Amino acid sequence: MPDVVFPLDSTKPFTEQKYVGHNRWHPDIPAEVSVRPGQTFRVHCREWFDGAIHNDDSADDVRDAPLPTVHRLSGPIAVEGAEPGDLLIVDILDLGPIPQEDSGPLAGQGWGYTGIFATRNGGGFLTDQFPDAYKVIWDFSGQRATSRHIPGVSFTGITHPGLMGTAPSADLLARWNRREGALIATDPDRVPPLALPPLPDDAILGRLEGEEFDRIAAEAARTAPPRENGGNQDIKNFTRGTRVFYPVFVPDAKLSMGDLHFSQGDGEITFCGAIEMGGFIDLHVDLIKGGMDAYGVGENAIFMPGNVDPRYERWLAFSGTSVTLDDEQRYLDSHLSYQRACLHAIDYLTTFGYTPEQAYMILGAAPIEGRLSGVVDIPNSCSTVYIPTAIFDFDVAPSASGPTRIDPGMGVPRSAF
Amino acid sequence: MPDVVFPLDSTKPFTEQKYVGHNRWHPDIPAEVSVRPGQTFRVHCREWFDGAIHNDDSADDVRDAPLPTVHRLSGPIAVEGAEPGDLLIVDILDLGPIPQEDSGPLAGQGWGYTGIFATRNGGGFLTDQFPDAYKVIWDFSGQRATSRHIPGVSFTGITHPGLMGTAPSADLLARWNRREGALIATDPDRVPPLALPPLPDDAILGRLEGEEFDRIAAEAARTAPPRENGGNQDIKNFTRGTRVFYPVFVPDAKLSMGDLHFSQGDGEITFCGAIEMGGFIDLHVDLIKGGMDAYGVGENAIFMPGNVDPRYERWLAFSGTSVTLDDEQRYLDSHLSYQRACLHAIDYLTTFGYTPEQAYMILGAAPIEGRLSGVVDIPNSCSTVYIPTAIFDFDVAPSASGPTRIDPGMGVPRSAF
Amino acid sequence: MPDVVFPLDSTKPFTEQKYVGHNRWHPDIPAEVSVRPGQTFRVHCREWFDGAIHNDDSADDVRDAPLPTVHRLSGPIAVEGAEPGDLLIVDILDLGPIPQEDSGPLAGQGWGYTGIFATRNGGGFLTDQFPDAYKVIWDFSGQRATSRHIPGVSFTGITHPGLMGTAPSADLLARWNRREGALIATDPDRVPPLALPPLPDDAILGRLEGEEFDRIAAEAARTAPPRENGGNQDIKNFTRGTRVFYPVFVPDAKLSMGDLHFSQGDGEITFCGAIEMGGFIDLHVDLIKGGMDAYGVGENAIFMPGNVDPRYERWLAFSGTSVTLDDEQRYLDSHLSYQRACLHAIDYLTTFGYTPEQAYMILGAAPIEGRLSGVVDIPNSCSTVYIPTAIFDFDVAPSASGPTRIDPGMGVPRSAF
Amino acid sequence: MPDVVFPLDSTKPFTEQKYVGHNRWHPDIPAEVSVRPGQTFRVHCREWFDGAIHNDDSADDVRDAPLPTVHRLSGPIAVEGAEPGDLLIVDILDLGPIPQEDSGPLAGQGWGYTGIFATRNGGGFLTDQFPDAYKVIWDFSGQRATSRHIPGVSFTGITHPGLMGTAPSADLLARWNRREGALIATDPDRVPPLALPPLPDDAILGRLEGEEFDRIAAEAARTAPPRENGGNQDIKNFTRGTRVFYPVFVPDAKLSMGDLHFSQGDGEITFCGAIEMGGFIDLHVDLIKGGMDAYGVGENAIFMPGNVDPRYERWLAFSGTSVTLDDEQRYLDSHLSYQRACLHAIDYLTTFGYTPEQAYMILGAAPIEGRLSGVVDIPNSCSTVYIPTAIFDFDVAPSASGPTRIDPGMGVPRSAF
Repeated sequence: MPDVVFPLDSTKPFTEQKYVGHNRWHPDIPAEVSVRPGQTFRVHCREWFDGAIHNDDSADDVRDAPLPTVHRLSGPIAVEGAEPGDLLIVDILDLGPIPQEDSGPLAGQGWGYTGIFATRNGGGFLTDQFPDAYKVIWDFSGQRATSRHIPGVSFTGITHPGLMGTAPSADLLARWNRREGALIATDPDRVPPLALPPLPDDAILGRLEGEEFDRIAAEAARTAPPRENGGNQDIKNFTRGTRVFYPVFVPDAKLSMGDLHFSQGDGEITFCGAIEMGGFIDLHVDLIKGGMDAYGVGENAIFMPGNVDPRYERWLAFSGTSVTLDDEQRYLDSHLSYQRACLHAIDYLTTFGYTPEQAYMILGAAPIEGRLSGVVDIPNSCSTVYIPTAIFDFDVAPSASGPTRIDPGMGVPRSAF
Repeated sequence: MPDVVFPLDSTKPFTEQKYVGHNRWHPDIPAEVSVRPGQTFRVHCREWFDGAIHNDDSADDVRDAPLPTVHRLSGPIAVEGAEPGDLLIVDILDLGPIPQEDSGPLAGQGWGYTGIFATRNGGGFLTDQFPDAYKVIWDFSGQRATSRHIPGVSFTGITHPGLMGTAPSADLLARWNRREGALIATDPDRVPPLALPPLPDDAILGRLEGEEFDRIAAEAARTAPPRENGGNQDIKNFTRGTRVFYPVFVPDAKLSMGDLHFSQGDGEITFCGAIEMGGFIDLHVDLIKGGMDAYGVGENAIFMPGNVDPRYERWLAFSGTSVTLDDEQRYLDSHLSYQRACLHAIDYLTTFGYTPEQAYMILGAAPIEGRLSGVVDIPNSCSTVYIPTAIFDFDVAPSASGPTRIDPGMGVPRSAF
Repeated sequence: MPDVVFPLDSTKPFTEQKYVGHNRWHPDIPAEVSVRPGQTFRVHCREWFDGAIHNDDSADDVRDAPLPTVHRLSGPIAVEGAEPGDLLIVDILDLGPIPQEDSGPLAGQGWGYTGIFATRNGGGFLTDQFPDAYKVIWDFSGQRATSRHIPGVSFTGITHPGLMGTAPSADLLARWNRREGALIATDPDRVPPLALPPLPDDAILGRLEGEEFDRIAAEAARTAPPRENGGNQDIKNFTRGTRVFYPVFVPDAKLSMGDLHFSQGDGEITFCGAIEMGGFIDLHVDLIKGGMDAYGVGENAIFMPGNVDPRYERWLAFSGTSVTLDDEQRYLDSHLSYQRACLHAIDYLTTFGYTPEQAYMILGAAPIEGRLSGVVDIPNSCSTVYIPTAIFDFDVAPSASGPTRIDPGMGVPRSAF
Repeated sequence: MPDVVFPLDSTKPFTEQKYVGHNRWHPDIPAEVSVRPGQTFRVHCREWFDGAIHNDDSADDVRDAPLPTVHRLSGPIAVEGAEPGDLLIVDILDLGPIPQEDSGPLAGQGWGYTGIFATRNGGGFLTDQFPDAYKVIWDFSGQRATSRHIPGVSFTGITHPGLMGTAPSADLLARWNRREGALIATDPDRVPPLALPPLPDDAILGRLEGEEFDRIAAEAARTAPPRENGGNQDIKNFTRGTRVFYPVFVPDAKLSMGDLHFSQGDGEITFCGAIEMGGFIDLHVDLIKGGMDAYGVGENAIFMPGNVDPRYERWLAFSGTSVTLDDEQRYLDSHLSYQRACLHAIDYLTTFGYTPEQAYMILGAAPIEGRLSGVVDIPNSCSTVYIPTAIFDFDVAPSASGPTRIDPGMGVPRSAF
């Protein structure tokens, strides 16, 4: 086990740890921890809501989820010698739930959760069809996950960090605030919002206090979106064996990470989210000096995924096009076509006895693949979603005998406002 | 070799064959050929431009491509006993270039092409960056493709039909025309157009003539987009071993197919298109009576892809978010984020010496994967594009020694208006 | 389609073709055909018994199989410029059953066979348990095989040549004859024999006649075993995309090939054999001058298998150790441990209703894997055999509910002496 | 993390732990630990030599390895309700090196070793060519292993228990002793020995003492070979996600396990052995009552391997036949043909600059595959060995430019008697 450079104690809240992380992006959040190029080290990560979501059968906690408090990130970690213009190589050596703790109140202690936010508090990919809050608890057994809320399904997790990135430069941060502010201004009262502006309330900025805290909290960017620095990319194959190349925008790179997932489907369509957990991640870092120019990587991490994800031979795939449920034609809208593909998959799974919420949760948490299959055939984009059939303990393929009927059990906990 | 139920002679144009296919969708195009459930049969398919694109080093033919004439489809093929409400099972047993013909003027005779349309005649995914017409010729050697226009690249083709589907009902056709007409009406003079309305000129409707031809040609839908009946889905893994379940909308199902591809990247981002070819396809059909209701498949084919595509262990991946090149923030626009991911890949490959056009063509023709990685992290969608590193004959991964420089050779033929 | 340098006409016997191949190894069999390094070409191959095995439900033909007549090989093909000491690179671009012929009396015309020789005429891997002759006919549908003699099983073929190799030098041939003769001499009357000596009767040596025929026929080696020149290696993954490096022992290399298989399990345990067929093979050749010394390859081909074999996620595996059925302990006998692993698999499959012969035939023809798992743990070797569960149309894994019972149908044709 | 039912303290020897395991097989070794069907639990395992092999650059410890003391096994673990005739289902949920300990004197504390025994003390697969003792130390970094003794190589471990099994019945044990004794009697003074008889010296039998210890120690079987109860099968793909079905021979099944490997090549040809380590294993057990008869599994575990081993696209393969290095022909000897294939691989790798010992060690420790390719083509068996090319950090394929030369560094420590 590598040295733990950023430890967390499961019995204490995120802000009372030896090192305090952050939940906003800003170049001036100080790094209390540093590593050298060539070093291997372990980082503990807290689940993104710091324990606000419980292992129970009510979705009230998801309905009332404190969105301004996310994501709890470990870091920033200074990488010695990193300078703007370099590429920071990060190898993900290993990661998993909280080691040696298989029960307890924190997601990552032997369990995790998938939630769907209510439209009034966050919303999500299919919020028009699923306007309330829902929650599913998953139990971990070695590499596999099962849920008492979704019978007949189990799968091997492709564990990964949903969020990792380097700190933005002051200029880059200013661009984010400008362009996202402009978008918000087009419909400032929208529910759910178009984007999230800086929000000093609930900001955590390491050990900063006083005026410096106030200055930075007023400018610091929210962590929800992926951006030029990596960030909340939610890439499901970002697992063990992956090598990532991050652009470096500030001295020492200031690497941060969190939002660990036990498993996720492409798109993380449930938003709250994948199978969320806290845990550990083992990393190795190195530098390509001047790599941004040399390789034309001015922004957005490039990466080489690991080769140890489960091997599947048989997938059931659904397609969608960019036509709304009201039969309105949209022009090459791949977001819509993926929604339609997912809705087709949900319709299909309900013929086996699942509730629509169960089907939606399966797509959010299981290792499904979402593909941009056709993006030029005007006016329709074609997106496809692939479900590995082996995650079901019955045969989910169509046949002349019609769908097997399963018992949906207690179903998915739901809470409305 | 199964019986050829729909033969084509390479020495004759599409309209002078024993059976004449079609290039529009309409329920009343008559089927001259029929098959039984349980039957295995072969169909010949013509490349989508019927020989208008040549094996040479000029892109004039792509610049002047006769878009109103596409796609040449083989069929309709009546499936005995199929009724509206059934699911038509189609197994793709085998497909490939024109058998026993390895040289000649038709794509599929040992070679194929990838093109990019000029903005004024079709456009494409990255038409703002690549406004002219471009063409690349690929040579087939067994399962592998190479191009004199793109040195250092070769790959195993995942052959597939870009287009297959059942005939729409009259009602469904009317919906298409209504909704696509409404979209066109929002900007009727746009270049390239938002969608393509019915166009009697250049319509091919089997052997129909006279008034019946005129009536149908005025209503029949263009074949460019994928729709509820399948159609031009351009799914790159729709290869040997795939089982598809099509909804049946008209008596006898009326199955048609064409637009064979030797290989394609997810999205077919070059539009004209994948590696285009004519060839053969061997199919087996069966029916699930009443399957549409039983499985909740009211529209859009579901499918189970084959398991014999090449196995890759190492991919280089690029990410993009829904921010324009002018730094304008868009809201969860997965089309844009995929464009940005592809542009990042192109920028990267040019540091190795490729021209931007060569890099674009590689993404269009090679078996790259395009994923909807994050679709909920407001305001940014995150799309990713994965390139198997084995398609290059040099090491394409970043390293401290900087990119290897290749000789781009003659480059990609280009023609401007 | 590449140029056919070695054509065969399905309506004529092997010895009445434009070019006549051979069924013995000797450096002096003349090459009538030549190719250049860098050339791509097609070769037709005859099934190894030249039509003696029929598509019917009797095993008499296998019982009486004319073993002295095998294998019918296409070649020798001279490779211009090849000299002893070079490595001959052979790329397998494509191969398959006889093109455009899907019915007829020759294996490869839409069908193939797997046989088991009677102990008195050839024997086989499990001849003590299966002393008679058996035969199974497989039908090809695209890439898949099914058999009327074995219900409930179908699989994608990994087509490959069972036999390919370069000509031996005179010295090498003399070594073969010396060492194999010495083995035979230890038990010359054994049934089945320990090895096969040169046999002028039934020898085919291209167009040679007269004294030269007699001289060579008396010395030429039989084609049954694999040897330093490659030969009858029966490697199941020697499929499309494979690159082989053969040592060159004589001027022009003199490459020959045949014994095409539609599919085979590791070991080809049924001996007669895999799924046998005639067909075509497309090759590309090149040379590494002086490669034998440079790479330490004094004998025995090295190869890099293709990456397009079917992807399986779930295997059922059986193990065996080097203890006989009579509980006699043998010392690290991996041949015996593989026999015991196969017998365990057969015992298992019979609990589902298969006859032992059906189970044996499945192991011989389906893409099973045979592994040398432990070869040092004295006194027991441990071999394992892996069966992909997807080849069965029922669930073949053990469960609390006990084995599903299938109807074995007509079973496997059998003929005793 | 599941409950640890069999804990080990790394600071204490194997015999001073809370529970003491065993290093012999006997039905009467008492189980101090029990689990229920349906239970998930963790077991700690000690490396097989209990710390006798050190992390240094001398092979003296391997030369003097105390073979009578192996293998240290954790167990027996009683499975409640298991009766003779049942099948015991064991799911391997997870396993790895000693958790939370990345440095220290015990293999498994961040490192492991591969050894080759001297001919006089154990010998091995290629002992004629490698008569002395050799040792290589591997460092673990996440899932990957590298060695200071073998530059240019790294790979992802497929962690697995080399040894697991149920207790033999008294009858079965008597059969083992009878048949292995008979083999030994054929050459009792052979070096290395043909098999290992019961040996009271160094026997560890849980907490047994006195007369009962003496009685059992005189009868108990050595743990080196795999046998009907599973045992030391050394199956390299016996990793996470694997389900095994063990025959139950005694009440409570009495499951034991140990000999964890970080990685291994098929055959474990180095004997001492794979990459040896101590660590943990998480298991889930269940029963199929009466399963031995129902499924025809009278002996030898059957298993379904997991699907998360690394995916490789490119392998370099070597073949061998059953001819000795002195050109003596053996009859279908698959053990010999695998030796020849491995020797060919070693010859090849030395042309790149590796010493023969380094090449041998790579084959023993890396995830190579060993296949029984042809077992019927008299007189030659054909075995093949496949090396994934990605384990080398240079291109290991043959090419016209000849082999890259690497610097072998300090090489492999060696000790002779």
